[in-house]
Amino acid sequence: MVNETQHTCSASSSSRSDGGSSSGSESSKDNSRCSTPVLDADRHERLREKMRRRQDAGDKWFSLEFFPPRTANAAVNLISRFDRMGAGGPLFIDVTWHPAGDPGSDKETSSMIIANTAVNYCGLETILHMTCCHQTKDEITGHLQKAKRLGLKNIMALRGDPVGEEWEEEVDGFNHAVDLVKHIRNEFDDYFDICVAGYPKGHPEAESYEADLRHLKEKVFAGADFIISQLFFRPETFLKFMKDCQAIGITCPIIPGIFPIQGYHSLRQLVKLSKLEVPQEIKDVIEPIKDNDAAIRNYGVELAVSMCRELLDSGVVHGLHFYTLNREVATTEVLKRLGLWNEDPRRPLPWAVSAHPKRRVEDVRPIFWASRPKSYIYRTQEWDDFPNGRWGNSSSPAFGELKDYYLFYLKSKSPREELLKMWGEELTGEESVFEVFTCYITGEPNRNGYKVTCMPWNDDPLATETNLLKDQLEKVNRRGILTINSQPNINGKPSTDPIVGWGPSGGYVFQKAYLEFFTSSEIVTALLKVLKKYELRVNYHIVNVQGQNITNAPDLQPNAVTWGIFPGREIIQPTVVDPVSFLSWKDEAFALWIEQWAKLYEEESPSRMIIQYIHDNYYLVNLVDNDFPLENCLWQVVEDTFELLNSPTQQ
Amino acid sequence: MVNETQHTCSASSSSRSDGGSSSGSESSKDNSRCSTPVLDADRHERLREKMRRRQDAGDKWFSLEFFPPRTANAAVNLISRFDRMGAGGPLFIDVTWHPAGDPGSDKETSSMIIANTAVNYCGLETILHMTCCHQTKDEITGHLQKAKRLGLKNIMALRGDPVGEEWEEEVDGFNHAVDLVKHIRNEFDDYFDICVAGYPKGHPEAESYEADLRHLKEKVFAGADFIISQLFFRPETFLKFMKDCQAIGITCPIIPGIFPIQGYHSLRQLVKLSKLEVPQEIKDVIEPIKDNDAAIRNYGVELAVSMCRELLDSGVVHGLHFYTLNREVATTEVLKRLGLWNEDPRRPLPWAVSAHPKRRVEDVRPIFWASRPKSYIYRTQEWDDFPNGRWGNSSSPAFGELKDYYLFYLKSKSPREELLKMWGEELTGEESVFEVFTCYITGEPNRNGYKVTCMPWNDDPLATETNLLKDQLEKVNRRGILTINSQPNINGKPSTDPIVGWGPSGGYVFQKAYLEFFTSSEIVTALLKVLKKYELRVNYHIVNVQGQNITNAPDLQPNAVTWGIFPGREIIQPTVVDPVSFLSWKDEAFALWIEQWAKLYEEESPSRMIIQYIHDNYYLVNLVDNDFPLENCLWQVVEDTFELLNSPTQQ
Repeated sequence: MVNETQHTCSASSSSRSDGGSSSGSESSKDNSRCSTPVLDADRHERLREKMRRRQDAGDKWFSLEFFPPRTANAAVNLISRFDRMGAGGPLFIDVTWHPAGDPGSDKETSSMIIANTAVNYCGLETILHMTCCHQTKDEITGHLQKAKRLGLKNIMALRGDPVGEEWEEEVDGFNHAVDLVKHIRNEFDDYFDICVAGYPKGHPEAESYEADLRHLKEKVFAGADFIISQLFFRPETFLKFMKDCQAIGITCPIIPGIFPIQGYHSLRQLVKLSKLEVPQEIKDVIEPIKDNDAAIRNYGVELAVSMCRELLDSGVVHGLHFYTLNREVATTEVLKRLGLWNEDPRRPLPWAVSAHPKRRVEDVRPIFWASRPKSYIYRTQEWDDFPNGRWGNSSSPAFGELKDYYLFYLKSKSPREELLKMWGEELTGEESVFEVFTCYITGEPNRNGYKVTCMPWNDDPLATETNLLKDQLEKVNRRGILTINSQPNINGKPSTDPIVGWGPSGGYVFQKAYLEFFTSSEIVTALLKVLKKYELRVNYHIVNVQGQNITNAPDLQPNAVTWGIFPGREIIQPTVVDPVSFLSWKDEAFALWIEQWAKLYEEESPSRMIIQYIHDNYYLVNLVDNDFPLENCLWQVVEDTFELLNSPTQQ
Repeated sequence: MVNETQHTCSASSSSRSDGGSSSGSESSKDNSRCSTPVLDADRHERLREKMRRRQDAGDKWFSLEFFPPRTANAAVNLISRFDRMGAGGPLFIDVTWHPAGDPGSDKETSSMIIANTAVNYCGLETILHMTCCHQTKDEITGHLQKAKRLGLKNIMALRGDPVGEEWEEEVDGFNHAVDLVKHIRNEFDDYFDICVAGYPKGHPEAESYEADLRHLKEKVFAGADFIISQLFFRPETFLKFMKDCQAIGITCPIIPGIFPIQGYHSLRQLVKLSKLEVPQEIKDVIEPIKDNDAAIRNYGVELAVSMCRELLDSGVVHGLHFYTLNREVATTEVLKRLGLWNEDPRRPLPWAVSAHPKRRVEDVRPIFWASRPKSYIYRTQEWDDFPNGRWGNSSSPAFGELKDYYLFYLKSKSPREELLKMWGEELTGEESVFEVFTCYITGEPNRNGYKVTCMPWNDDPLATETNLLKDQLEKVNRRGILTINSQPNINGKPSTDPIVGWGPSGGYVFQKAYLEFFTSSEIVTALLKVLKKYELRVNYHIVNVQGQNITNAPDLQPNAVTWGIFPGREIIQPTVVDPVSFLSWKDEAFALWIEQWAKLYEEESPSRMIIQYIHDNYYLVNLVDNDFPLENCLWQVVEDTFELLNSPTQQ
């Protein structure tokens, strides 16, 4: 009874404090004076609350299960998949615990690191699986502490499979998932949301279906927040299971696990592992087409859609959990057919937010990392508090060093051979570099017929927004203004604008025009003369790799270049040009020439020396046109610069 | 090599932090994340730095001396004078120490409280005089501590006049101004800027002119930052004095004290006190016109202008200090003739900033106190940190109680008889109240022929900006929408706009339309029906005196209603509609009905009961139109409300 009251208490108090803050430091007086305008309730809710809110609102949702990859390259691909499938709007994803793969380690393929990447770098609500058998309490606690440190907030508590054939209980060990649930609640109180597994047909090792239901109830009463079911083949299996659960007093959400059949072999393997029996009607369809992958997948999609519809129509199912097998096509297809795939073009902020709890008030970033958000997150991962409302004139934002350019979530998705094809097997001079930049902007194939779909400073094709500036960008890149970041000026477009909009609806978004590029010292000299004419209208920062720094920024204050005005809210200014951070970015931007481009070539090769020359001699320039309601003057600045260079009297 | 790079980094960052902040608490990590964009360098500089900067820039400046008033009513008038003369742009004002008037006490006429008012409520850089003779060290320290606590940053250190005829040095006491200078530096280090007096003709009690110069040098070497001179009648007197000072090694600024002759008697009295001799050429002019005040003042102005011109033309004088005798006309005239009176229409923020050092980062306030800024400052005087950048969703901003509505700096400038003429000797019903509001808006005389130039919620005539809304306001007040605060919507006017502009030049200012009024519950009922139609476009808060609170504000978040975008800076949003503060304001706004209006009438009188009825039954409403780029819809909301009220089906 005491325990029950405590539970109620902590539940209600947690629902309050979670809305605002979790750590002591956040609720301090100082912070309350400049806290976030809670743009996005999602950022402040825990998973079980999101689930409840969606259910209360009658919103159906889905979630996606992945397993850790085997190789570093597969990890790079999986992260891209997280980004792509994350766009469909899963309520959460989960990452399985792979005991054989050193799951709690810092390896780039470990369960822990994959889940960490999903939360911090892809901004996804994530559940990390954890199994407990064959592990000591200290090991488990260590894993949980690490998960908490990394910003993981949800654990799927599992027993795990015994290693040998014989199952033997360990004295004082963790023998059942319920032991893990209790341990988490004992050691971490209410910090984690806990999920447990339910078996619609009963666990294969359980004495009986009824006995297994009682085990499940134990897990819930030990503190689990919701249940995800093992896969099943018939909707009535799950609906009966749900009813039986309720009958014995299990009231938490129970989410059906959906397994779209994607191929003959994967089905066989899964059935073997889960010890489930495939119903005869399914076998009858599959056997004759077992060598036709496409046919099986189509059938699997069909089957899953019809089962999901039945579940949703029952009125008792509010969310669907998909066993993706790390594949995209079938699950995405099912979700689209169900109308659950929801590519919401609305963004809470112009950049993708991270899901680490300590970053949930973050709403200002320097613009420089716009195309390298994962690098920004990596370099600021040690920060304890994040800018909220204002960037401020902090004297030295401590950016972590970015030494390992091959960190798997920062690594280019393209292999070396492909990069060489895009960026040139052999460079003949600075002009061949201009050409690469130009092809990236225009989307035209380069002289060898290859499209340039990424650059060292941008691993993705040109943003839709940048497309607005395409013609101008092409012109200047051809002439050696090598652009790596830009945005048009925007004078109050609706926040729902499909290209430049962000934030809640009913608001207005604004931008100052921004242009960032590498260019030669000759051009910089002319540019500086031209900029005098523009006085305070254009703020500039011009640096070279040695750190020579020329600027007209007043008092080294940050310049807000993107902001939004919303109904009933304070003003949000999510991107700034911060002169101090620019010096950290400068190091990264220059290093990318060498790390990602020059190193594609042999040492001492002419190609490598060309890139090295640019690295050593070019300047990195950023320009802001402060007069956002007027026509962007930055193109005129560049035009004037070339005119000055070409005028014989100025030579 | 690695270290060298780091070194370059930190060097460049330290040059920043100098510009940014001076006190220890401001450089803390939390604050650095949301510190002020230093809109106004003035707010961060100490007086001696401002003086140096003006001198370096070749800007001439002036300052004004006042003495504490004798009565509370005179204090009210002096504060208005501070506001009016402050508009001319003095570098500082100073308040003399009046030993007979209990100068360090909390009396509303004390030197300390008058200086406190100038700093905190009028936002003026202020020097408090302090004399030391006949006082113990502890008394002096107590005064200085109090001055510091009140936000005073500058002291004029004086000996003071001996009480009797005989001057007797006290052992271990403060016998000379230099003792006070030393004491301030010993006890308060560099906290205060210290000013001392210089005597162009030598102090009357000094053994000699040369001996007096040596005393002056002692005072400077003991830590004084600059010198203000005693009055004199001929420019050459001062210029010689300056030269003599420099000759013996006094290098700090020396500011000539200018005394515009304003009348025969005041001249005689001053001459008696200062033991100065009036030159014969001046006596010759004055004696014949001694009964013609206007003639003497004109002559005095003429004389002062010509002397000031000569001083400024000398090239060694950069600022002029005026002995105003608490009068406006002559000094203002001299300053205007000299071209030094500089009514800068540009405001650093839309509201007048306070000069207390702890408020120097403050840049956000709730809009409610727009017409009662002194009340806002009073009620927030105990705050330790002030909102900067964001108001934040602080759950309970602790506003001090405003119990004493007769605090002299909050008191109406008009006496009871005048208020009765404006607001009605006898009210006949709610309509007579509507009439008072309407007359205040239109500027037309009321039925008894008196103009209504102030209201309980606004002690000054209608703001220029509000005039933009005059016709609409008139219409609604006539019908019982009793407006007390409003602003039009502004969609990006230049920051230099003479009416709505503020902040540095080159920026753009914005506003959401705002309307705040008292009205009957009948109108509120109809209004609420109408507001449904406007959904999120209009945010509203509707409260009555009992605290019934109806709102559609999301999560009780503040709504920014005034903001500005400036070159090279973060965004400033100086006014917000904060739902939580509104409840504190509500208490004040309702209380003003009783304290300032109802109490003009006898208890139980019909007039008093009418005001009491309104106080008890009306609602206070505020409306924000979030769609600032569109035409203000709030008038339509009111129009729709009256239409609904008049439609027979809805009655």
